[in-house]
Amino acid sequence: MTERLVVFTPSGRRGSFADGTTVLEAARRLGVDIDSVCGGRGICGRCQVEVSEGEHAKHGITSDATHLSPVGEVERSYARERPLAGGRRLGCTARIAGDVVIDVPPESQVYRQVVRKEADAHPIEIDPVVRLYYVEVAEPDLAVGTSDLTRLREALEREWGLTRLAFDPHVVRALQRALRARGPEPRSSGAWSVTVAVHDGGAVTAIWPGFHDAAFGIAFDIGSTTVAGHLCDLRTGDVLSSAGEMNPQIRFGEDLMSRVSYVMMNPGSEKELTKVVRGCLAKLTAELARDAAVDRDDVLEITLVGNPIMHHLLLGIDPTELGGAPFALAVDEALRMRATDLGLPVNAGARAYVLPCIAGHVGADTAGVILSEGPHLADEVTLIVDVGTNAEIVLGNRRRLLAASSPTGPAFEGAQISCGQRAAPGAIERVRIDPDTLEPRVRVIGCDAWSDEPGFAGARVTGVCGSGIIEAIAELHLAGILTTDGTIDGRLAERTPRLVANERTFSYVLWAGEPELTITQNDVRQIQLAKGALYAGCRLLMDRYGIEQVDRIRLAGAFGAHIDPVRALVLGLVPDCDPAHVTSAGNAAGTGARIALLDRKARAEIEDAVRRVEKVETAVEPRFQEHFVGAMAIPHDSDPYERLSSVVALPPRSGAQTSDRDGRSRRRGRPTTSRGTA
Amino acid sequence: MTERLVVFTPSGRRGSFADGTTVLEAARRLGVDIDSVCGGRGICGRCQVEVSEGEHAKHGITSDATHLSPVGEVERSYARERPLAGGRRLGCTARIAGDVVIDVPPESQVYRQVVRKEADAHPIEIDPVVRLYYVEVAEPDLAVGTSDLTRLREALEREWGLTRLAFDPHVVRALQRALRARGPEPRSSGAWSVTVAVHDGGAVTAIWPGFHDAAFGIAFDIGSTTVAGHLCDLRTGDVLSSAGEMNPQIRFGEDLMSRVSYVMMNPGSEKELTKVVRGCLAKLTAELARDAAVDRDDVLEITLVGNPIMHHLLLGIDPTELGGAPFALAVDEALRMRATDLGLPVNAGARAYVLPCIAGHVGADTAGVILSEGPHLADEVTLIVDVGTNAEIVLGNRRRLLAASSPTGPAFEGAQISCGQRAAPGAIERVRIDPDTLEPRVRVIGCDAWSDEPGFAGARVTGVCGSGIIEAIAELHLAGILTTDGTIDGRLAERTPRLVANERTFSYVLWAGEPELTITQNDVRQIQLAKGALYAGCRLLMDRYGIEQVDRIRLAGAFGAHIDPVRALVLGLVPDCDPAHVTSAGNAAGTGARIALLDRKARAEIEDAVRRVEKVETAVEPRFQEHFVGAMAIPHDSDPYERLSSVVALPPRSGAQTSDRDGRSRRRGRPTTSRGTA
Repeated sequence: MTERLVVFTPSGRRGSFADGTTVLEAARRLGVDIDSVCGGRGICGRCQVEVSEGEHAKHGITSDATHLSPVGEVERSYARERPLAGGRRLGCTARIAGDVVIDVPPESQVYRQVVRKEADAHPIEIDPVVRLYYVEVAEPDLAVGTSDLTRLREALEREWGLTRLAFDPHVVRALQRALRARGPEPRSSGAWSVTVAVHDGGAVTAIWPGFHDAAFGIAFDIGSTTVAGHLCDLRTGDVLSSAGEMNPQIRFGEDLMSRVSYVMMNPGSEKELTKVVRGCLAKLTAELARDAAVDRDDVLEITLVGNPIMHHLLLGIDPTELGGAPFALAVDEALRMRATDLGLPVNAGARAYVLPCIAGHVGADTAGVILSEGPHLADEVTLIVDVGTNAEIVLGNRRRLLAASSPTGPAFEGAQISCGQRAAPGAIERVRIDPDTLEPRVRVIGCDAWSDEPGFAGARVTGVCGSGIIEAIAELHLAGILTTDGTIDGRLAERTPRLVANERTFSYVLWAGEPELTITQNDVRQIQLAKGALYAGCRLLMDRYGIEQVDRIRLAGAFGAHIDPVRALVLGLVPDCDPAHVTSAGNAAGTGARIALLDRKARAEIEDAVRRVEKVETAVEPRFQEHFVGAMAIPHDSDPYERLSSVVALPPRSGAQTSDRDGRSRRRGRPTTSRGTA
Repeated sequence: MTERLVVFTPSGRRGSFADGTTVLEAARRLGVDIDSVCGGRGICGRCQVEVSEGEHAKHGITSDATHLSPVGEVERSYARERPLAGGRRLGCTARIAGDVVIDVPPESQVYRQVVRKEADAHPIEIDPVVRLYYVEVAEPDLAVGTSDLTRLREALEREWGLTRLAFDPHVVRALQRALRARGPEPRSSGAWSVTVAVHDGGAVTAIWPGFHDAAFGIAFDIGSTTVAGHLCDLRTGDVLSSAGEMNPQIRFGEDLMSRVSYVMMNPGSEKELTKVVRGCLAKLTAELARDAAVDRDDVLEITLVGNPIMHHLLLGIDPTELGGAPFALAVDEALRMRATDLGLPVNAGARAYVLPCIAGHVGADTAGVILSEGPHLADEVTLIVDVGTNAEIVLGNRRRLLAASSPTGPAFEGAQISCGQRAAPGAIERVRIDPDTLEPRVRVIGCDAWSDEPGFAGARVTGVCGSGIIEAIAELHLAGILTTDGTIDGRLAERTPRLVANERTFSYVLWAGEPELTITQNDVRQIQLAKGALYAGCRLLMDRYGIEQVDRIRLAGAFGAHIDPVRALVLGLVPDCDPAHVTSAGNAAGTGARIALLDRKARAEIEDAVRRVEKVETAVEPRFQEHFVGAMAIPHDSDPYERLSSVVALPPRSGAQTSDRDGRSRRRGRPTTSRGTA
């Protein structure tokens, strides 16, 4: 029999095959990654390939479309339902008929990558934990007497090499009817064929009559304020729908600690908090499926992240222990369970994977951040900060990874600030103050224009959100209104009516409308306390690692996405760094959940990374207080912030008595980075 | 340090140990089987030992109670709550102080045997799949920051060498409180100690605060008519309570096939049949626990057997496929699931194990019979017959095992017999007919006296059950009233008024009271058909094995328990065998469930045995009909029943025209075995 030389691209694998071998068979023998659900029956269309025509000097092949067998009936039948793109062939029906170079396009590969939008983000590998397998099962035979399950096992082993499978009880129950029913048209091949979902190569979790080609998953990020979900196609990794809901636990307490207090005061009420958050997930599931026009029964996998209190409440564990020292987690390891155990309206065999927690205040959300950001994969030392009621801080690289939380309090979320509010339409999120006139410009959520631009007219202004307060205070400092030690300098009241006396302190009127929004001396103190705690936590980790500076800083979470890096540094929110290397990580926790959904290897990876994390408990570190006191100043009592200063002229260090009213020095206070001044 | 010689009995293991080593530690180092739940803390009292005092020349030791350390406070404290039998010591506190011979009594061993009442039965090994472990867990420490679960894992590994454990979700939820609660008095050692149940060495399925010493299991036998359960102590193997209930599915059909018909006629009704049988199991569970004064939450393991239709309905699988060829089981392999998946009111972590089915009509009940009877362990060839609507037949030995079912119909259960009824009080179960007077004597269920004895006076007689019909027909044959071909010989009507004409045939009045009970010619035909089918099935298996006779026959089930072996052979119910080797196996299916409950190894054993069973489908075997026709005669058309004849003088082969009225020859027809005639 004539042997033909076959080369597959992009893998470059090559081999000799007898005339008449199918392309799929040749690929399998060479270990070339080509997808197939139907096992080479011309049903699924996953194994499409293309002949690379022409002279391939490198391979010594003149490749031509005619070096594959002509299109036959199976392929024509497939193409009638789903036309094949020009030149595409089904690998399972096209046979080798000459020397040929065959290209396997990305969509025909099982293992591939999804490139992410975020800067600095590594691509997501697609290697889903659930895969579908189509098989044709022998009919029962009185003389042989094997059970339906035995014959299905035999088919799965014969066609896919799957052995030692465990079958979910609901699959055992459904088996008999699935085998005897005809699958849905047009790609049914009649009774005695089924598609099964196999979880992690070991458990059969779902079964459908005939050929079935849909498998979806949802990644959930359970925040204290918002619960968000992304529904993904497990094969392609595409996000088909996204949705968010207010966390309904809010009615038991605005922030985490008030919810824990509620449970402490009302023993047994944790059951109610568990119920409402699960209800929220169920509602989101239905919404996501509807938006993506997906059958909920085709949702086979769920991943979840959340801070430790959300994590415990999700699982039905009383969070009271997390409300006080020693902040003992009931469970920190990654958990695997039935999605229906969490009350989710998805396939009865769907599994849920909850990412691991790290420490009492460093939860599965931080594990998600690590998975998304990958500090443990890099040589450079990354500092990742996720700011909420507590700040979660991760520092390290491939050699070491440290984590801590720092008790920043809710000031960064707008709480305890006179004009503060949650980030929502109407909240001031950006602030610029002219150092000459001391007049502010602001931008609010829900409007793209600045307040001095025409498009702003009529915009509703209701309060100041966390990033707005940070910008306001940084700008007050750059404008010379706020001293290094954090005093609003009343002596400037003669230059602007925006500075108003308030008993023994001064306030700055940021918005003179209705309601009037002012930054009070107390607001500044609250932010100083919060940012001092955050800075001190970061420094503790750096001390422990033994470094004086970090290579890059990533600001995670919704808050981080809206902070201007220069102003964060001017405030001294994080240790000194080149502002060009201080960037937003976006919703890294949610992305981490999505990675764990799409790539089974990522689960082992994050579990291993979390096991290696060195936990630093700020509450028992004697140097925390020392760092905290120094960090109360703006940007810092002793740290000169040299890298920031090299791109931004900071005001001279001063108390109120040394404030410099000279215009030039005020101008020195403006940012001069190439990234512009907004 | 002084080394002492220690010998353990009954194992005979010996070794040298330093003065002060505990007996438990010495035993563990030598691999001597001593139980312990509390890990050597003097709490559980499982490790009790006794010094074998005196001169042990064989070991070269003079052993004395003083060669163990004096009784200390821990031991005294234990003994105050639970006095120690004379001379008993706690192995975990008693320390080696001299050369000593130590006896480990059976109740202190983990692995032991339960000797069974049944003749010929091998003892049950106790090696339960669930074991309890007590551990003391480190308290949370802010500086270390490990979770409760991690510290519990550490304790289980440190104290018991248990690693890679999976934790049930409900255990993860319960963990926090169990660790912080004090265990029950008096053996509590305060918070931070728990007892966990570990299933099959791999899964933590339950947790209790403090020390917990109770673990129970229930073995269920789901019959078409009766559902029976036995609640056992998983440690000792003792049956603490037994209970039975009428199978509530009876309202959907008296026998199996009528229930299948019901489901066929009423699609979807299988859900109702599943519900009622599960409800029955739940009711029995509550009853068994109450009778044994056991907390249902301490029931950790369930095993179940049943015929294929009961098996499928239990699992929620439509049994319709079992109602017609090819009689395809949906599932035959052994199944493991949560007991709560079957709706059983037991511990949330309890597991259920359903024994494997063998073929379309040979179910998990037959697997239980095999496990109980152990034909696969013996050299001799055993034939096991379990008679119901279908007869299940198993034949073989350690080399080969064959199984079949034979369609006997319900005649053996009293159905289709004019005077037939189910085995219940009032049913005639034993019959003797005097060959001279042709007068019968009977015994009924619920009365120990024969009808010609004074104790019988006033006993209610309502019908004839299966064993009664078999005895009646065998006795009619032995008395010369019934010919070899199964005709009631009307010529004897002149000798007895009990023979009455009925159109063209004769009947025999077995009971002349109210109601009058007669054996009609049609009744005889029904039994001939049934026993012919049973015999033919047995012969088919013997043909397949290639043997002409079997070494022993075991009659399983309630029916088998009441059949007199000689009369079963006279009827030709089973192939010829020495009557001394035809015995009842009792409720072997239920015993098999109990063995699977108590001995984890038995599960692998029966799964392996079932996999090796050669299934014979009587319906497709051409020789079945041939064997069936020959077996219609009494005892058989051509088989001389030589082994039966050597102990019982059978009537000469005859048709009605050759019947011998000579007294001597009639006397030859009486049994003369040493086992007596009544």
